[in-house]
Amino acid sequence: MSNIIALLTDFGDMDGFVGTVKGVILSKAPEAKIVDISHNVKPQDINAASWILTSSYKYFPAGTIFVCVVDPGVGSNRKQILVKVDQYYFIGPDNGFMTRILDKCIPDVIVDLNNPQFWLDDVKQTFHGRDIFAPVAARLFNDKKGLSYFGSVIPIEDIVKLDLQYPYLKDNKIFGVVDYIDHFGNAITNIPESLINHKKIAVSCDRLHLDSLATSYSAVEVGEPLAIIGSDGYLELALNCGNLVEKFNLSVNDSVVIELLPD
Amino acid sequence: MSNIIALLTDFGDMDGFVGTVKGVILSKAPEAKIVDISHNVKPQDINAASWILTSSYKYFPAGTIFVCVVDPGVGSNRKQILVKVDQYYFIGPDNGFMTRILDKCIPDVIVDLNNPQFWLDDVKQTFHGRDIFAPVAARLFNDKKGLSYFGSVIPIEDIVKLDLQYPYLKDNKIFGVVDYIDHFGNAITNIPESLINHKKIAVSCDRLHLDSLATSYSAVEVGEPLAIIGSDGYLELALNCGNLVEKFNLSVNDSVVIELLPD
Amino acid sequence: MSNIIALLTDFGDMDGFVGTVKGVILSKAPEAKIVDISHNVKPQDINAASWILTSSYKYFPAGTIFVCVVDPGVGSNRKQILVKVDQYYFIGPDNGFMTRILDKCIPDVIVDLNNPQFWLDDVKQTFHGRDIFAPVAARLFNDKKGLSYFGSVIPIEDIVKLDLQYPYLKDNKIFGVVDYIDHFGNAITNIPESLINHKKIAVSCDRLHLDSLATSYSAVEVGEPLAIIGSDGYLELALNCGNLVEKFNLSVNDSVVIELLPD
Repeated sequence: MSNIIALLTDFGDMDGFVGTVKGVILSKAPEAKIVDISHNVKPQDINAASWILTSSYKYFPAGTIFVCVVDPGVGSNRKQILVKVDQYYFIGPDNGFMTRILDKCIPDVIVDLNNPQFWLDDVKQTFHGRDIFAPVAARLFNDKKGLSYFGSVIPIEDIVKLDLQYPYLKDNKIFGVVDYIDHFGNAITNIPESLINHKKIAVSCDRLHLDSLATSYSAVEVGEPLAIIGSDGYLELALNCGNLVEKFNLSVNDSVVIELLPD
Repeated sequence: MSNIIALLTDFGDMDGFVGTVKGVILSKAPEAKIVDISHNVKPQDINAASWILTSSYKYFPAGTIFVCVVDPGVGSNRKQILVKVDQYYFIGPDNGFMTRILDKCIPDVIVDLNNPQFWLDDVKQTFHGRDIFAPVAARLFNDKKGLSYFGSVIPIEDIVKLDLQYPYLKDNKIFGVVDYIDHFGNAITNIPESLINHKKIAVSCDRLHLDSLATSYSAVEVGEPLAIIGSDGYLELALNCGNLVEKFNLSVNDSVVIELLPD
Repeated sequence: MSNIIALLTDFGDMDGFVGTVKGVILSKAPEAKIVDISHNVKPQDINAASWILTSSYKYFPAGTIFVCVVDPGVGSNRKQILVKVDQYYFIGPDNGFMTRILDKCIPDVIVDLNNPQFWLDDVKQTFHGRDIFAPVAARLFNDKKGLSYFGSVIPIEDIVKLDLQYPYLKDNKIFGVVDYIDHFGNAITNIPESLINHKKIAVSCDRLHLDSLATSYSAVEVGEPLAIIGSDGYLELALNCGNLVEKFNLSVNDSVVIELLPD
């Protein structure tokens, strides 16, 4: 069973916020092994957090607890939730961070974390990561049975979902979007390899036009663009040893079209 | 008892400095659990380090060792100190990083770390984090009794203190300053909630004027400014889903005035 | 024996790539203590990774496993290697990251990691850090005997080396270069203290001219430049409480000349 609590936030790495959260967790669950997924999600970017979490979680051991706090609504009446799905536990504000995972997996249970018994005594309305999510994660780490002592079980359909765009096929074209931009400046689309399934293709995204899939970043000359199936199995646009997104000025949700050509 | 050594530095996250410090600690105290508070304190900004440390340390288990190295005077004749206070241990250069904590708590003991017995053999004048503070922290981790083997006990009044500004009340106004700016662009003041204690107030900071306290960041429209009691109990100025400090071009030590209005 | 796996990559701290790698390692080697050296090596900058690794590794306990993934050639036909040298294990793409260490130490063995037995089942051509290096490191952690089950032993001379510049002495002058620029904006040269070994010197680098070695950063006025022997024993150019490299617009490989003057 996993002894890991994994953290994903937009708290940044300049202030002591992440250290404080770890202090709370380790005060209550000294045996926990804390792993940082990222704390440099762009402030308030729930969509990016959802993408990162979905890309990472499957590589952790079953039983891992994920605390995902990108929380522009902290202190408002948004719910805070615990989701058990696919042998993992996810804790965070009910703002859509689970969308991509719940698009693919049916959760075992969703709990509205409305029982303050395990929260810190003095909950501030600006830092639930410290005052609610951290102590709940620590308590869950210490006892993974009986999730309902954290609050009320709620129906699956009550969870907040992001309004994502999904790829579709029409007239021999696949229409998708840029779903995530990584730190290398690669543009990862929402078009899965399984949907492409064709030998000859042409890819277009803004001013960028490519007529084949590369097998590695370095299959083209340094500084040249390429299309490739990325590490999560989605079409990715990149520049060999460079930053594609800066060069072509791309953004999340930019349209990407794949034309399936006659062989 | 805590098994944690927590680190706070301006070493950044680009070079291997932090990794090297951890290598030294774990070579000598393999059982230590190292927690990063931050390594992205602005270079040489002792004041920010002091603020972050004060905000974080209470959330760690009693017995935690804090190594705080923002050290522009490394290799000069500035002292290096160990402070035991409030069940915690603090190690770092004697340059004021303990100021805010010692404003509130009387230390048990302050030791001038002038006994080289536990330092690395070859101490360089540019990296005492690696050569002095890390091995001393590891040795302290292994044996928390008898602090005086690290050096001479010194009087409390000998420790270096930062020249901080403190809030004051005059003619129904509270005069304070911006004490810290966080990575979200929130401006956290030095005015504690306890000093405000009034229903109707008006807050001014440069071009920013607010006439009430919000109960959450999202209590105002997206992009609008607000005043709120922040997570450490001090008045904070923020923008809902935005960066207030950039928008209003604020700096640490900018004046903040609260007017206490008739109910 | 070390229980550490230390990571050095250019994966950045914004995405979940590092968290994913840790998930893979801890799934297979739950007892490993993972230490981050840096994940903010400039993308594709193998030279910087080599410098950082060389500066850090000696401070870790013997037996530590280093995973160094700055890998512009991922998915191409570049080899992936395991090097045992000086009681440490190094894993990464065969692209020169070991150059500085192998300039000083003869390796015990170099293995071409061409046995896929311990890789993840589905290896993508864009993320060998996750699919090859992480599971190999975990397996090595669990059993440090018999390195050859990871692949074929190869001759020492087959490893890829960076084309580094080395300092030389000519006509009472030492000719070197800026070898690394750190996050403080200090320029660390490739000229070791042992080569200087002279009382009166003059140092030149571009528009910067200095006529002595300082004993600490703060031995000159705030904002003034200085030359000093840095923490790894090499000549370093710095600004007291400032960023020298920005001020003088220096770059890696800029020429540095030390003139040895008559006493």
